[in-house]
Amino acid sequence: MVEIMNLYQQVADELRDLIKQGTYRPGDKLPSIRQLATTRKISIATVQRALEELELRGLVEAKPKSGFYVNMPVGEAKILKTPILPMVPKSIKIHEFASQIFHQCDASNVINLGITYPAAHYFPEKILQQIAAKVVKTRIAEVVEVHFSAGNQELRDVLAKRLNEAGCLLNADDLIVTNGCLEGLALCLRAVAKPGDTVAIESPGFVGLFQLIESLGYKALEIPCHPTDGLSLEALELALEQWNIKAVAIVPTFSNPLGTNMPVENRKRLVEMLAAQSIPLIEDDLLSDLAFDGSRTKPCKAFDKKGLVLYCSSASKTIASGMRVGWIAPGAFYKEVSYFKTFTNISAPNITQIMIAEFLKSGKYERHLRYFTARLAQQMYRFQQAIEKYFPQGTRISRPKGGCILWVDLPQPFDGLKLFEHAIKKGIAIIPGQLTSATNKFNHCIRLNCACDPEVDIEKTIQNLAQMVNELLNN
Amino acid sequence: MVEIMNLYQQVADELRDLIKQGTYRPGDKLPSIRQLATTRKISIATVQRALEELELRGLVEAKPKSGFYVNMPVGEAKILKTPILPMVPKSIKIHEFASQIFHQCDASNVINLGITYPAAHYFPEKILQQIAAKVVKTRIAEVVEVHFSAGNQELRDVLAKRLNEAGCLLNADDLIVTNGCLEGLALCLRAVAKPGDTVAIESPGFVGLFQLIESLGYKALEIPCHPTDGLSLEALELALEQWNIKAVAIVPTFSNPLGTNMPVENRKRLVEMLAAQSIPLIEDDLLSDLAFDGSRTKPCKAFDKKGLVLYCSSASKTIASGMRVGWIAPGAFYKEVSYFKTFTNISAPNITQIMIAEFLKSGKYERHLRYFTARLAQQMYRFQQAIEKYFPQGTRISRPKGGCILWVDLPQPFDGLKLFEHAIKKGIAIIPGQLTSATNKFNHCIRLNCACDPEVDIEKTIQNLAQMVNELLNN
Repeated sequence: MVEIMNLYQQVADELRDLIKQGTYRPGDKLPSIRQLATTRKISIATVQRALEELELRGLVEAKPKSGFYVNMPVGEAKILKTPILPMVPKSIKIHEFASQIFHQCDASNVINLGITYPAAHYFPEKILQQIAAKVVKTRIAEVVEVHFSAGNQELRDVLAKRLNEAGCLLNADDLIVTNGCLEGLALCLRAVAKPGDTVAIESPGFVGLFQLIESLGYKALEIPCHPTDGLSLEALELALEQWNIKAVAIVPTFSNPLGTNMPVENRKRLVEMLAAQSIPLIEDDLLSDLAFDGSRTKPCKAFDKKGLVLYCSSASKTIASGMRVGWIAPGAFYKEVSYFKTFTNISAPNITQIMIAEFLKSGKYERHLRYFTARLAQQMYRFQQAIEKYFPQGTRISRPKGGCILWVDLPQPFDGLKLFEHAIKKGIAIIPGQLTSATNKFNHCIRLNCACDPEVDIEKTIQNLAQMVNELLNN
Repeated sequence: MVEIMNLYQQVADELRDLIKQGTYRPGDKLPSIRQLATTRKISIATVQRALEELELRGLVEAKPKSGFYVNMPVGEAKILKTPILPMVPKSIKIHEFASQIFHQCDASNVINLGITYPAAHYFPEKILQQIAAKVVKTRIAEVVEVHFSAGNQELRDVLAKRLNEAGCLLNADDLIVTNGCLEGLALCLRAVAKPGDTVAIESPGFVGLFQLIESLGYKALEIPCHPTDGLSLEALELALEQWNIKAVAIVPTFSNPLGTNMPVENRKRLVEMLAAQSIPLIEDDLLSDLAFDGSRTKPCKAFDKKGLVLYCSSASKTIASGMRVGWIAPGAFYKEVSYFKTFTNISAPNITQIMIAEFLKSGKYERHLRYFTARLAQQMYRFQQAIEKYFPQGTRISRPKGGCILWVDLPQPFDGLKLFEHAIKKGIAIIPGQLTSATNKFNHCIRLNCACDPEVDIEKTIQNLAQMVNELLNN
């Protein structure tokens, strides 16, 4: 997984650090291309490439005939607040409603700012095509035959290697391949609890997790989140004293919908806190490769000494959603998860597993991620800028450092569902806050998918949305 | 789906009919090739091809320097008896044991007469390879992107067409694509019952169904089966009076393990009997394309007027087990099944769905089936002959008219599990009767997969098994 960094990337990183440290502040003009090339003794082309990289990442902006300027940090004054929630385990009844909304978001004539699958454009189609052609040509016997196994060995080998690099001590035999991350979460939930049991989750949280909890007949206990650090450990501690919690299920990295990234020390503390009471933690880590700056926060699994962390991830947000390849490191629950996997569908298809394995092994994954996260950062930045510009005073927005989800907290009273209903009629899909909690505390919020098709005119779309917001606020 | 039949096939069918009608009886010599060619005014090559076809189907045998003779029907005197069972709903605890056995069957150095997936050899690798290469080349965008749908439209269209031809009035919108048939059965079971409920199944029955029932916390009520007609409707009628049965789940066509084919009038009566009490029927129809004579018995679904039949099938036994493509026509339970499908894994991968759709549409499926079923019939016949020859007096064997599963009922007292343990040590995998019932009534039986690799020396393998059987009987 070692990669040689190009010179332009080194220069981009240096400039990024100078901006972070305040050497160049928002609004400042950067030195000219010629100056940068001279002082660093590098070519003009390299400087240009580095500045393009910074532009893609939303850190600087080119002004015609003038030069490159440091961007204003978006939403600095509009940071989210930690919500205060009454914590009571609740039966969930969100699915039917959610399902209707998703089907409308998925219509072909709609600008999808709703469902958080990246548009096909961002996926490495050409490379996957080459890999698939080779697999089909040389390994068709493997494609047609099924085996009673935890998944393709080659895929589990490369995943184990990557997880080791992320700080998790495990090997291929600790992994089970699934048909996507949602299947993984479902299997883990079935392995650790039974109908009627309470599972603690983030609030606002991932709608799919609410739906899974509903489909299994469990109860959800919503734990408040810090606006940048994710799950409030203090609130969880309190909840653990009050309630009989069978498991905790969270998205520590670029959470859905808040986009928070739980600090590594919190992860460690969370794992220890739960280990002390032998409570399993289901960790949904499917976005951790999508940090805008290429960093990777250690997953909770890295701190798991008792095998109580059930780690789930997938290639659906990073490589191809349509291939439905996910994986689980279920720790001490391996046997239970394997059992439920077998009686869900025996195993994942071979062709998709081999394709993902070959792609991860090809060395092209890192390059793809650099391209992809740069575009995601750019998309996110454009959304943030447009919202700043067009949405009403008092709007707060999240500032994720990775992933593709933006959270917009509108001035109350406001009804996210009404905005959904208006917007979908005009061909724009969003997710109303109603789908992110059973507490009704986030009904005034909306969730946006920034990884929409790059052909979408973001400014115009947000301007249209803002107009609807204003109409609703004035009615 | 219209196919032009070759001349040699017509001749083979005519000769088959003459044998069936008794014009040529077991042991009779057929007219010589020259005679057949002259009387029918066809070429010698065509007659030879027709006789080869009959030989493949196990109907005639070539004797060197003599000619073709009509085979003895196998096991005529050894027909199975309808077992008498106490019918009481039971909690199931079979999985751990079954799982251990399956993993041993799946080992690479073992002759697999256990797991009933056909060996890769029988699957149409070359055609699938061509189709896959084209899909990869021309439709990669569809491969990488996911949609919230009931499955690929093209696949559902062609499946609906085939089901219409089989007598089921339904269209593409009535179908949900699954990751294999077992997933389909699991989704249907979840849709019609809840933990603690009783589901009536065949006895002996399909081990996967027992395991599913166990994994869902349901109870199984085992209904006795007739040796050729399958589920005893009289016994089911009695059970319906006695117990609160939430659903019936059976394999009417080439059942597992008995290989029975429920007569069409029984299917009609079964559907009507259950409809009168509004009890859903889960129909596992995955082997119905594998009749040795190319016939197709109408599925129960064809008689379903109230939407109470949940029809499940897959391409895993007919086209490729490793692609994990199945489908459900859930009738009135569409909404529930769709709900559980979404929260199992959203949807099946696109590439495998498109490949199966293209194959079914190519017109090459019928040709493949003719090839495949001829080979299956031949394999089955060889197994039956070898068992007749080497197994002890008193052995009874099934005589399925399709599929790949053979059932061997050994003279009691005998322990199928002990035979498994001996055989696996010598590299031969079988399924002991213990996995086909929770009543212990079939512990003396074994189940064999006849679709093993064609390189397996059947006579020698059965001779080895027979030796172990005799040793066990004499101890």
